[in-house]
Amino acid sequence: MRILIIGAAGMIGRKLLNRLVLDRMIAGQRIDAVQCVDVATPPMPQDIPFAVSGDAADICDPAVARRLVERRPDVIFHLAAVVSGEAEANFDLGYRVNLQATLSLFEAIRAVGGDYRPRVVFTSSLAVYGAPLPDPVPDDHHLTPLTSYGVQKAACELLLADYSRRGVLDGIGLRLPTICVRPGLPNRAASGFFSGIIREPLNGLEAVLPVDDDVKHWFASPRAAVGFLIHAAGLDTGRLGASRSFVLPGVAATVGEQIDALRRAAGEAAVRRIRRVPDPAVARIIAGWPRAFTADQGRSLGFVAESTFDEIIQIHVEDELGGQIAA
Amino acid sequence: MRILIIGAAGMIGRKLLNRLVLDRMIAGQRIDAVQCVDVATPPMPQDIPFAVSGDAADICDPAVARRLVERRPDVIFHLAAVVSGEAEANFDLGYRVNLQATLSLFEAIRAVGGDYRPRVVFTSSLAVYGAPLPDPVPDDHHLTPLTSYGVQKAACELLLADYSRRGVLDGIGLRLPTICVRPGLPNRAASGFFSGIIREPLNGLEAVLPVDDDVKHWFASPRAAVGFLIHAAGLDTGRLGASRSFVLPGVAATVGEQIDALRRAAGEAAVRRIRRVPDPAVARIIAGWPRAFTADQGRSLGFVAESTFDEIIQIHVEDELGGQIAA
Repeated sequence: MRILIIGAAGMIGRKLLNRLVLDRMIAGQRIDAVQCVDVATPPMPQDIPFAVSGDAADICDPAVARRLVERRPDVIFHLAAVVSGEAEANFDLGYRVNLQATLSLFEAIRAVGGDYRPRVVFTSSLAVYGAPLPDPVPDDHHLTPLTSYGVQKAACELLLADYSRRGVLDGIGLRLPTICVRPGLPNRAASGFFSGIIREPLNGLEAVLPVDDDVKHWFASPRAAVGFLIHAAGLDTGRLGASRSFVLPGVAATVGEQIDALRRAAGEAAVRRIRRVPDPAVARIIAGWPRAFTADQGRSLGFVAESTFDEIIQIHVEDELGGQIAA
Repeated sequence: MRILIIGAAGMIGRKLLNRLVLDRMIAGQRIDAVQCVDVATPPMPQDIPFAVSGDAADICDPAVARRLVERRPDVIFHLAAVVSGEAEANFDLGYRVNLQATLSLFEAIRAVGGDYRPRVVFTSSLAVYGAPLPDPVPDDHHLTPLTSYGVQKAACELLLADYSRRGVLDGIGLRLPTICVRPGLPNRAASGFFSGIIREPLNGLEAVLPVDDDVKHWFASPRAAVGFLIHAAGLDTGRLGASRSFVLPGVAATVGEQIDALRRAAGEAAVRRIRRVPDPAVARIIAGWPRAFTADQGRSLGFVAESTFDEIIQIHVEDELGGQIAA
């Protein structure tokens, strides 16, 4: 199997490559080669048991898209995106990367022609939904994106379905839960605190909580996200409906429940590192977000996430902290 | 007011221009000029009481889009589209005209900048919906387009909402009912018979009916469609939700009810000109289409369609047959 990872330098892309190195197999077959691409050269793990390449390239350039599919990768993970806040701040960049680059990729695949019909695993987002939303949101709830990012993802889902129906590619669109606990430094995303209030206290650092304890949201670990991608690569897409995109299973947790899980994992001292600084602007943004999903389709297709927020913390401790919580 | 009609040579575009000539006003203000554009030079009515221009141009060319908005039209009717069957047969053409040209238009408007924020009335389609569908379909039913045309229209609706939210334009997307009775020659659209079984018998000609009498669909007259466009041009878009697109009111009628109305209008002799030639391929296509809508949002916004299929026939007789039915 030949694999192409677009957006390979991002957090999920790097974890995906690490997982492929461990698995050596995908969709029941041996991995022969992995091409990695991102705007910056993706970092490479050690001792890779297959051919691998890592390139810095602008996927918005149709010539780049054509070059990427030249070697006819069997599975394409299209993870590249300008994130929500950036797509809102930079209108041009968002449309170029999140919409036109996806279209360029699909067109490049179509240009290969013949019997080429790769599996395309596309990461969509909960941002395709917008308030008012029921709790939980059922699988057939209508899409009402309220951000440019959400609009771009929803438009790509439509294209993915049509290019699949027309036999150009074999697409599957994954509306990922909010990934938590996101490793690394705090970022300025409105959702950043959901990870920050766990990650920072576990590192002995203070974290700011800008919303109330009863705010509820939909989470999965980075490890679960990589599992979703791998499962999607091997899935019988005949089991998907015409839309090809759906919400992945996750854990619905309130901020209060997150904090209770932190207390169970690391004690009251860790919880005391959370500083409550209400931010009405953040609260307003979060109020428009989904709180929970039934995710029936994703579950019935065999996608598996954590079942408690305690598990999500445990995975963070195992995968990012070497199994140890700082005293 | 300066008006731009894109797709002015089509059936609805020509009727819209005729209506503007009669009204001389739009959105409560005097019409100063109307620019008309289409792939072929649009025909011009006589005695036009305002400045008018008619151009043949390819709106897929971003330079053309920029030229069209150069004079800052206050209202843009974007009616141009490659129809469903053609978008299915010609993948490239469909995406170029139905998606990229719309995006080029929106980008051209954005490039004007400053305080320019035109009203954009965009004609969408019932093709954004796909089976399985409830009867009637409620306003918040999720979109599941099953054709390239439907995907392109749904993607444009998303863009219309986002470009509106971002203040680039002030959009309104109209999911028009199937227009009936469509004047002119029979075409090969799967929906063509809905008009054919009325139009041809009224002209003393035979019409072929390829489906059962219990097939139900959602209709409005060409006159109602023009009324929708005019109403949309003057509507307070603050009353629209974030999505900006919705289904227009119409008449739900079965083929049997269409035929009953034809009998009331033109007698049994006309009905006898309908020849039943079942076509399983057409029946299969139509089975995926919506049968009726609540259209609550459209009605509450003041859009008005016919209330019976008899009215739809009467309008055809008045507008296309000079008020007279051939013996």
